[in-house]
Amino acid sequence: MPRGNLETVHHRALLLAQLRKWLDSLRFKDAFECMKKLRINMNLIYDHNPKVFLENIQTFITQLNSISHINLFLTELKEEDTTGSMYPRPPDISPAPQPVSLQKKVDVVCDALRSAMEAMDPNKFFLSILTTHVKKSVPELEVALQKVHELRVNPPADPGSVSAEEALKYLLFLVNVNDLYDHSLGTYDFDLVLMVAEKSQKDPKEYLPFLNMLKSLEPNYQRYSIDKHLKRYRKALQHLSRAGAEHFPEALQLVKEQKLYSEALRLYSADPPHYKALSCVYADHLMQNQQMEQAGLLLWRCGEPAAALQAFASASCWRNAVCAAQQIPLPPDQIALLARDLAEKLIEQRRHSEAALLLDQYAKDCEEAILALITGSVWDEALRLIYMHNRQDITETNLKPALLEAFSTQIGFLEVQVATFTRHRIRLSVVREQKEKHRLDMLDEDGPDCPDAELYSEASSVMTGSKYSHSNSRISSRSSKNRRKAERKKLSLKEGSPMEDRALMYALGEILTTVDKMREEVHGLLKALVLFHFERQAEKLQQIYEESLQTMEAALPEVWSDGQNIQTPLTGPNSTANSIMASFQQQQNPAAPQQAAEVLAPPKMRNGVKWKLAVLS
Amino acid sequence: MPRGNLETVHHRALLLAQLRKWLDSLRFKDAFECMKKLRINMNLIYDHNPKVFLENIQTFITQLNSISHINLFLTELKEEDTTGSMYPRPPDISPAPQPVSLQKKVDVVCDALRSAMEAMDPNKFFLSILTTHVKKSVPELEVALQKVHELRVNPPADPGSVSAEEALKYLLFLVNVNDLYDHSLGTYDFDLVLMVAEKSQKDPKEYLPFLNMLKSLEPNYQRYSIDKHLKRYRKALQHLSRAGAEHFPEALQLVKEQKLYSEALRLYSADPPHYKALSCVYADHLMQNQQMEQAGLLLWRCGEPAAALQAFASASCWRNAVCAAQQIPLPPDQIALLARDLAEKLIEQRRHSEAALLLDQYAKDCEEAILALITGSVWDEALRLIYMHNRQDITETNLKPALLEAFSTQIGFLEVQVATFTRHRIRLSVVREQKEKHRLDMLDEDGPDCPDAELYSEASSVMTGSKYSHSNSRISSRSSKNRRKAERKKLSLKEGSPMEDRALMYALGEILTTVDKMREEVHGLLKALVLFHFERQAEKLQQIYEESLQTMEAALPEVWSDGQNIQTPLTGPNSTANSIMASFQQQQNPAAPQQAAEVLAPPKMRNGVKWKLAVLS
Repeated sequence: MPRGNLETVHHRALLLAQLRKWLDSLRFKDAFECMKKLRINMNLIYDHNPKVFLENIQTFITQLNSISHINLFLTELKEEDTTGSMYPRPPDISPAPQPVSLQKKVDVVCDALRSAMEAMDPNKFFLSILTTHVKKSVPELEVALQKVHELRVNPPADPGSVSAEEALKYLLFLVNVNDLYDHSLGTYDFDLVLMVAEKSQKDPKEYLPFLNMLKSLEPNYQRYSIDKHLKRYRKALQHLSRAGAEHFPEALQLVKEQKLYSEALRLYSADPPHYKALSCVYADHLMQNQQMEQAGLLLWRCGEPAAALQAFASASCWRNAVCAAQQIPLPPDQIALLARDLAEKLIEQRRHSEAALLLDQYAKDCEEAILALITGSVWDEALRLIYMHNRQDITETNLKPALLEAFSTQIGFLEVQVATFTRHRIRLSVVREQKEKHRLDMLDEDGPDCPDAELYSEASSVMTGSKYSHSNSRISSRSSKNRRKAERKKLSLKEGSPMEDRALMYALGEILTTVDKMREEVHGLLKALVLFHFERQAEKLQQIYEESLQTMEAALPEVWSDGQNIQTPLTGPNSTANSIMASFQQQQNPAAPQQAAEVLAPPKMRNGVKWKLAVLS
Repeated sequence: MPRGNLETVHHRALLLAQLRKWLDSLRFKDAFECMKKLRINMNLIYDHNPKVFLENIQTFITQLNSISHINLFLTELKEEDTTGSMYPRPPDISPAPQPVSLQKKVDVVCDALRSAMEAMDPNKFFLSILTTHVKKSVPELEVALQKVHELRVNPPADPGSVSAEEALKYLLFLVNVNDLYDHSLGTYDFDLVLMVAEKSQKDPKEYLPFLNMLKSLEPNYQRYSIDKHLKRYRKALQHLSRAGAEHFPEALQLVKEQKLYSEALRLYSADPPHYKALSCVYADHLMQNQQMEQAGLLLWRCGEPAAALQAFASASCWRNAVCAAQQIPLPPDQIALLARDLAEKLIEQRRHSEAALLLDQYAKDCEEAILALITGSVWDEALRLIYMHNRQDITETNLKPALLEAFSTQIGFLEVQVATFTRHRIRLSVVREQKEKHRLDMLDEDGPDCPDAELYSEASSVMTGSKYSHSNSRISSRSSKNRRKAERKKLSLKEGSPMEDRALMYALGEILTTVDKMREEVHGLLKALVLFHFERQAEKLQQIYEESLQTMEAALPEVWSDGQNIQTPLTGPNSTANSIMASFQQQQNPAAPQQAAEVLAPPKMRNGVKWKLAVLS
């Protein structure tokens, strides 16, 4: 701003009001020149009222009537809405209109301006049209280059129009020369490449041999080479797949290097031998990434059942494994061996029913199958196989002893669970009482032992865990799973640990869920015990399990809800304004760390799952 | 209290203090007489210090030295602790001692007094000893009667002791004559019965024939008849079971009438034919109560496989049904028929895998089995049977078309779910905004539109659902399941319904859970699609399912937590004391009905269940 010349001082609010008036009355030229002079962001011309601008785009071009002015406007275009940031609308003006399109603003303006200029005079506005291509959010450099190339091939008769030379210069002014060279290569049009190369500072000794080499190649292979040079590997693979079978090893190499497996399978789907080769390398890759099952699927469908079998077996996908084995086809004794191997792994994973199926149907060893089911406590299925293969002898030798053992195990397990549960519950009420006492001591400002208040406050903040809110924020960026894990780690059951109450609640919840999950298992065991006349044991188990469930259900309100919302009346004759606020903040604090909610939510009991036998009650 | 005689006015606190001193110094007689005179509850003698009383029980008896006084003390005994109710301990005295025993207080005192009196002089204290039997929480009338009977048979030489006559009279004074007669019958001692009957007002013409008839019976049958007369059915059955096989029909009748099935099975467990008959009537009873499976178990174990088969089949317990069928043994063609019947039922219950097992292994119809699996979308198992039975033709004719149909169904289903979810989510934010506006309008007491405040308050209470807390309490006695049902019924999705926001949250939760549950199914379908080269469909399904899950997961914070705890700062420069309290109470209110918590808890997504295929991404 020239010093001391008051006439050139412009108050921005007044200025913007004037600009808005001009824009509303479609006086774009006045607005533009004023903005240019006073360095107002040009985006306002569009942002002020996008709809009006787009509808009167021809008026805008006609009024400006200058390629350099239009280019100036285009180069200043930004995605940002200036009426929302730099130049907010005055409050008395109607609110911002809805965006006119889902496309990006810059793209909308560029496309609208280009189509208007092309309709009016493509030759005259040639450079501005180039600018609209370059300015798009994904620059359309190939199109711009193509247009320059056309200009060179067919120079317009109109004397006022720009030459191809000028246009290319202008383009190089807008875009980095190397980018432009790469994009010209990407059009696979050597004329275009040469045109750009000549204008660039590149050494013809360098680029000419390269271009000549490319020119000598088979068209698809040529395009592949260019794509690869430009690191456009997907396109490269597409061209290479059309270049003939002799290039397949190169394609395979490319697929492996760039991990273009899915792409490759699509391209070679009509070519069985190559499809198979690709499937195999993809499967190798998947197996390295521990995706055994998917590797197996690819191998199986491309006709490699033996390799598929290996993959399936190592992933314990036993169904697919035996299918593949039968497709090979493996001889029966080898299938039996396979089945035993798979069954062994499944038993390790406690999948006894599946193991039994393999042993029974593929290894043809019903005894092993029945024993697997007995080991897995799958009583009804064990019984089915016993009758199916007429092996009632196993009932006496294995099934009945296993039933009695399962009975003792369950009883012992339940007793331990209930004892631990009760111990934790009692300790929890002690811990809560202590906390509540601390809280009341703090609130009791009228009490005689005020001098210690500060001391208490510190102790209490440690007790309620607020000391830990810092460490919480430190790990907030981790995944929620890790966060939960970390949260649990901090919960120590050691007496006096800062979050002992939460640790106890968590432990109580775990026990309750474990015991509740036993409903189906206990139901099955009860039925088997009754069937084999072990009535006394069945009655005892039913009684003890019922008592266990009742003990835990009875503790639910005390542990999870009543204890949580200690609704001491906040307001009342004895409360002061300070005590109300203090206890209010106290209540809010513990709720703040969201992770805690999980530990504190009461576990659900599946009372809908009926497990009791009427014959035992 | 005699009027006007001031000397007989006793201040209770002083009196109790005196009594406590006497009791502490073991002056039981002084205490007793004073209490008797001034009508202080005798229980205090024990309650004041149970341990001291029990240790000095002989001193107590010796000091009172009067049967009628001891009887008075005994008859006044009550379970209630008078130091906790009528005569509270003064605060300066040490707290109540722990109860001396887990037994009931009355029983403890009666037993202690009796053993002391029996040790001192059983003849002298005979009537008091009778009283201790009668006063027990479960009166021991038989023992008392037995003692009277003994007295009659062996009258003591001691001249001061009571006669059996007197003792019986005293007993009849304590206990209702009919009760005593019944209990005398219950001792099965006819001397005793006659003794009581003679003392009673009963007509000998009535009871003598009855007693004579009983006397003539076989001892066990006699006892059974008495037990039945006294409605002691359990004991009756015990005696009847020992009375010989010819009474079994009567026993069966008793078991059915009194539903003593379990008892009967225990009593007759060593008697196979009767055990079987009892099992059958029990099974009938269980079947009438829709306990088909348990009925089947009883029938099967007592050796009635045909009847068991019926029971199992009607309960779709197919495993046990085929076992029973093989035990009968049914011929193969009938087993096949049975398997088909069972499979049909199982398919109706969407238990396709189990149906397929029946069709394959028992009906020997692998084609039907494979079709059942395809219908149930159990792709991997269908494929296993196809390879096992070498029926690859079914892959082309049924499996592949079914895969494509399943693909379309899933896509369509997901699209509907996502559309509904989005619609509900948008509506929810509108409803919440309206509620929040109402709330702010209410709080804004400084605002200009205060006159409407009362009107708003009413409208708002309707909106936040507090109007419904009354109806909640009305149904609080129902089971929690019914309550939840009722709660949901009130949730209407109709626009403007009072709890529309909760209804929307509930509906959103349901959709989310449904879509989340599809992980395993989608995973299986994706693998099958890939295997049969339906890559395009698999990719589309994976993409759409992934988007659906993302849409829902992204909405979780908005719908379930942020929306719930609108933590508008309560305190601040613009808040008044009233506004703080008002908004505080507002926040508390909606949390009050506990049932709502279920609707409002954010549903969990099982992100641990991996369903995506790497080969498709």
